[in-house]
Amino acid sequence: MMDFLEEPIPGVGTYDDFNTIDWVREKSRDRDRHREITNKSKESTWALIHSVSDAFSGWLLMLLIGLLSGSLAGLIDISAHWMTDLKEGICTEGLWFNHEHCCWDSKYVTFEDKDKCPKWSSWSQLLISTDEGAFAYIVNYFMYVLWALLFAFLAVSLVKVFAPYACGSGIPEIKTILSGFIIRGYLGKWTLIIKTITLVLAVSSGLSLGKEGPLVHVACCCGNILCHCFNKYRKNEAKRREVLSAAAAAGVSVAFGAPIGGVLFSLEEVSYYFPLKTLWRSFFAALVAAFTLRSINPFGNSRLVLFYVEFHTPWHLFELVPFILLGIFGGLWGALFIRTNIAWCRKRKTTQLGKYPVIEVLVVTAITAILAFPNEYTRMSTSELISELFNDCGLLDSSKLCDYENRFNTSKGDELPDRPAGAGVYSAMWQLALTLIMKIVITIFTFGMKIPSGLFIPSMAVGAIAGRLLGVGMEQLAYYHHDWGIFNSWCSQGADCITPGLYAMVGAAACLGGVTRMTVSLVVIMFELTGGLEYIVPLMAAAMTSKWVADALGREGIYDAHIRLNGYPFLEAKEEFAHKTLAMDVMKPRRNDPLLTVLTQDSMTVEDVETIISETTYSGFPVVVSRESQRLVGFVLRRDLIISIENARKKQDGVVSTSIIYFTEHSPPMPPYTPHTLKLRNILDLSPFTVTDLTPMEIVVDIFRKLGLRQCLVTHNGRLLGIITKKDVLKHIAQMANQDPDSILFN
Amino acid sequence: MMDFLEEPIPGVGTYDDFNTIDWVREKSRDRDRHREITNKSKESTWALIHSVSDAFSGWLLMLLIGLLSGSLAGLIDISAHWMTDLKEGICTEGLWFNHEHCCWDSKYVTFEDKDKCPKWSSWSQLLISTDEGAFAYIVNYFMYVLWALLFAFLAVSLVKVFAPYACGSGIPEIKTILSGFIIRGYLGKWTLIIKTITLVLAVSSGLSLGKEGPLVHVACCCGNILCHCFNKYRKNEAKRREVLSAAAAAGVSVAFGAPIGGVLFSLEEVSYYFPLKTLWRSFFAALVAAFTLRSINPFGNSRLVLFYVEFHTPWHLFELVPFILLGIFGGLWGALFIRTNIAWCRKRKTTQLGKYPVIEVLVVTAITAILAFPNEYTRMSTSELISELFNDCGLLDSSKLCDYENRFNTSKGDELPDRPAGAGVYSAMWQLALTLIMKIVITIFTFGMKIPSGLFIPSMAVGAIAGRLLGVGMEQLAYYHHDWGIFNSWCSQGADCITPGLYAMVGAAACLGGVTRMTVSLVVIMFELTGGLEYIVPLMAAAMTSKWVADALGREGIYDAHIRLNGYPFLEAKEEFAHKTLAMDVMKPRRNDPLLTVLTQDSMTVEDVETIISETTYSGFPVVVSRESQRLVGFVLRRDLIISIENARKKQDGVVSTSIIYFTEHSPPMPPYTPHTLKLRNILDLSPFTVTDLTPMEIVVDIFRKLGLRQCLVTHNGRLLGIITKKDVLKHIAQMANQDPDSILFN
Repeated sequence: MMDFLEEPIPGVGTYDDFNTIDWVREKSRDRDRHREITNKSKESTWALIHSVSDAFSGWLLMLLIGLLSGSLAGLIDISAHWMTDLKEGICTEGLWFNHEHCCWDSKYVTFEDKDKCPKWSSWSQLLISTDEGAFAYIVNYFMYVLWALLFAFLAVSLVKVFAPYACGSGIPEIKTILSGFIIRGYLGKWTLIIKTITLVLAVSSGLSLGKEGPLVHVACCCGNILCHCFNKYRKNEAKRREVLSAAAAAGVSVAFGAPIGGVLFSLEEVSYYFPLKTLWRSFFAALVAAFTLRSINPFGNSRLVLFYVEFHTPWHLFELVPFILLGIFGGLWGALFIRTNIAWCRKRKTTQLGKYPVIEVLVVTAITAILAFPNEYTRMSTSELISELFNDCGLLDSSKLCDYENRFNTSKGDELPDRPAGAGVYSAMWQLALTLIMKIVITIFTFGMKIPSGLFIPSMAVGAIAGRLLGVGMEQLAYYHHDWGIFNSWCSQGADCITPGLYAMVGAAACLGGVTRMTVSLVVIMFELTGGLEYIVPLMAAAMTSKWVADALGREGIYDAHIRLNGYPFLEAKEEFAHKTLAMDVMKPRRNDPLLTVLTQDSMTVEDVETIISETTYSGFPVVVSRESQRLVGFVLRRDLIISIENARKKQDGVVSTSIIYFTEHSPPMPPYTPHTLKLRNILDLSPFTVTDLTPMEIVVDIFRKLGLRQCLVTHNGRLLGIITKKDVLKHIAQMANQDPDSILFN
Repeated sequence: MMDFLEEPIPGVGTYDDFNTIDWVREKSRDRDRHREITNKSKESTWALIHSVSDAFSGWLLMLLIGLLSGSLAGLIDISAHWMTDLKEGICTEGLWFNHEHCCWDSKYVTFEDKDKCPKWSSWSQLLISTDEGAFAYIVNYFMYVLWALLFAFLAVSLVKVFAPYACGSGIPEIKTILSGFIIRGYLGKWTLIIKTITLVLAVSSGLSLGKEGPLVHVACCCGNILCHCFNKYRKNEAKRREVLSAAAAAGVSVAFGAPIGGVLFSLEEVSYYFPLKTLWRSFFAALVAAFTLRSINPFGNSRLVLFYVEFHTPWHLFELVPFILLGIFGGLWGALFIRTNIAWCRKRKTTQLGKYPVIEVLVVTAITAILAFPNEYTRMSTSELISELFNDCGLLDSSKLCDYENRFNTSKGDELPDRPAGAGVYSAMWQLALTLIMKIVITIFTFGMKIPSGLFIPSMAVGAIAGRLLGVGMEQLAYYHHDWGIFNSWCSQGADCITPGLYAMVGAAACLGGVTRMTVSLVVIMFELTGGLEYIVPLMAAAMTSKWVADALGREGIYDAHIRLNGYPFLEAKEEFAHKTLAMDVMKPRRNDPLLTVLTQDSMTVEDVETIISETTYSGFPVVVSRESQRLVGFVLRRDLIISIENARKKQDGVVSTSIIYFTEHSPPMPPYTPHTLKLRNILDLSPFTVTDLTPMEIVVDIFRKLGLRQCLVTHNGRLLGIITKKDVLKHIAQMANQDPDSILFN
């Protein structure tokens, strides 16, 4: 009898949508592929070249990902800048200039005229030829809201019509995908195109959202699409996830200009399987992306980082107290935000609200725009606001935040000592307090709408405002009460003692930490922004406090909370499983269920198997020696079984319903004149994972996590007893945490 | 019958020296402990406080490790500085000042007298009251060699007499320990004390070695010793290894002043099991250590880093060519060094040479000192040399390396354009070339001697010299041929185009990368030295090239090579196992061996078991239902079995040689008047790991690595067939790599 099944059948070994991959199998397949190429490479020069190019294809892919995501980030930055300014006016000299470029040469003519710029026309100047008076203000106000609504409408419509996966930050889904789940199209080209366009629109609409999270999604889309150019990565789900981890690092790298922080973010927050080889490649991709972005130079200052800060004065030990206070604030805000945002998102999912995404976006945009225009700190883009808050006041700063008294009679160059606050600072404080309240409230309703939205920037803004308020407060306290023991011993009089910008930065780190529960990557990203090891200790103190406070109020970060809200099958690698249950408590069949459905190795007919397939929905079946002995031989996947039987019926002569299927090496002895047998050993997994029924679940969970299993068989004294799938594990974990176990199903 | 065995028997669950720990069991035990504390915490306030203090004990431990290792590093730095200078002279004003401190105030009197310092006396001034003439030179020469010999003799004698484990860099052994091996005393207090003292002596003796690797060992000793203060860590081998990983990070952090680089080094190079929680804690320990060191301020410049560099000019794209050349040099040097050093060390192990460590050290020291004194670049300490090579020449630099022509007629402040080299530079070049040759040769013989010796610094020195030579060459080329297309288009004439110091830094990274095969951590450490993202690309290009070149000539880094040389049972996590063997090819018993030794669950007597224990040397036995069925019940460790039987014979009435041992839940039915039975279920591991005989070895290796197993049982169709231990896996890997499999045994 010829063995038709020696060559692979198309479809065997692939996965359906919304299924979990088998990491062990994928990695084995890649090793087989690699072995084959290595063996062939000794045969001919061509094969050798193929082998070398295969080895370097990973690096080439990283280079391409870096270039593409860096370019896209540059494009997004430039467009978002221009469109954000479009809400306020246009450049008469060239429509394609944003406000800053338009006023480039007129900026530094004289110090007083610094903010005037004849080439830039506000909408009132254009429409009613004046910039003064109440009517002009109303025209500008109206135009501002109008543009915001237009951008938001475009964004939500595009998302709704072309790529529903383009909404949100994408990080919860990317975490799930990287852990081994398959969501087709989530990282596809339509998602990429629509997400890029709508991200610009959403940012420009002035909503309280950032582009940082979505940039990770964009970079992952780039990675996934570029994978299609390389056989090695196209066909292997595990290898592709290595690339996606690196792409996520590149995404954060361009979002903040922090390549090392990006790699650590990918390692700490996003990735599931992160071998050291990937670490090195991620680093490469992140660097290429960062330098591509820098050569595009979207901020016009040839700086790599989004918020470049340089502080001149050291911090003092007593300042750890306010820094820790900021940490507590950040933790509280994080916990509050997660709870309320999840409650609101749950409401959206379960009520009528979810059916009108366009109206929801327009209403939130309208409210945001109407509230934002009158206050200059809400009107400017959030990243500009953060940048201004981080800034240490120099001698020439015209910002209201730097309006201190006696600002010009100093002899010490650019460094300014602590001074009493002027009227500008006081009014800025009030405006900032209002901004803080507005940001806190509106962000809760914004994150989760059907538009691309990240929350790094809004969280940082909340923290930066709180930090700056506290910083200015401390500064004034130190100025007016410099005789107090604590200030007396640390600050010399007339010196620059407190840096409010540093407080803003620490506050930003604390709030971001409270929401995302990042730790090392957060501190490293912030460190890369300032570039001085000096300020790591304050940042670390705030980040640690914030994480502890937030963890005490709720264990999950925002991404994990959204993963759970959406019911993605994600097995958290950070949490220890702390309960004392055994494998037998979790396995199927339960005590009163019918027996486990098994196949026998050489006694079932095609028809028997087809009946079992049609009567059950299990995604795989254990194969045993005989029903009586229940001794395990292997495991076969439903999908592979269906494809193989179909294929055999079509192509293999004599395979009929009464044909015996056998999984053994040799065909079982048959009486004469029986139909042809069907050998299916090649689709049988001969090394299924087994545990005993008395294995503690903590070990089972550990095995699932570390080896990336889909299922595991349970035996007792050598006899097959049951099966545990990843879904069973997830359900059990949810049950133990007193959650509804049925929420752990993708819906 | 009373069950005496419900309470734990002392000794059960601990390990013998030179044994491998079972990670799964250790982690389970910690989870049990944690569960118990959490459950109790609800009962009383005291238990709650205990629970909270238990949770924070990890952080407290990290703080203590940071403080202690930072202080020790400061102490070592200060002492080594002072003793290094002692070889040349003493400070007459105060014996405890080193050269730099002694000449602190007289240093900047006038530019010309800068190097003269009346308070510092060379030995010739002290002994024969003059510093001029040949005789004075000989006196100084003699004293230099004498001190060197004295220091080296003290170092090697102390190591030999008090703590033989204090020799070498310690990193190979720490890697092995972290992977789960037990070497008692390797991280003990004697090792700590002796290593700290002898490290100072070894560095001061002028040998070609560094203190960076040994500092990691010192920090790990601190970590291990401090673990004894905390129950949580003292009793659990897995938890203790988490602490040691963090301590290794603190070690590198103080060695280079690079906390982030230290954490990544621990993650990439040293650690085996590195959960994210450890990442965050390592980072904390590394920071505390770095700041402790900084507040001790051993370099007197309140800089955190060992080699602080600030470059003023950007690099140009065409410079990537020399940078890649440096990478190739680094790779070649790395491969050459590893080969020759391993060959020499093997010779030392196998011939008479190894029996005279003191003489060997004295001979190498004498040769080093005699060759070093005449050349100023070998006479200075290696870290000073590197510091000088990294340095970008400023206007006031008096170093010979900065002796360019026209050095004073520049109008551009501190920035100097490219200039023709003066006589000083040319003579420095010759001296550096000689230094390069000497360092290359002598380091091969130095690393591996019976004194503490790291090779970060010597490797970096080799690279820095090569880099500086190439850098100066490029600079002169650019100056004399500025009309060449390549220079013409990139460098404007009269500008500072090439920075030789940057070349030195890139060369240092390349050589260090070639020897250790570090990647991300290397680049991050170097980045933390310069503090500018600007120079990451050159560093990365060189590190990548160097790793590729070195890997092409030999897969192993120096630490892995030494692990193999010493036959430590270390299962490399980075290398993929690429062969197509199956579990049945590796398991014991082999085809013609006697059957697997098993215990039955309820039919063997104490005597039977004792016979098996005395006749075999296996460290554990599978327990089966019956010999006929070979159905697996569990696994029991030899050590636990011996302790339990001994204990039962002593304390349990009626247990005699003919007593039946049973591992089942209930005692088997017994005829009347038989002796008491002995229940040993509590020492039985009821969840042994099993794989089928057809499981590919690549998967088995993966399981061993990821779960940290000691052994794994092999089944066929549900029947027990054999066993694979970690040693079998290591032997098999060695066999597949055509190495002697019997070298994989600790000796």
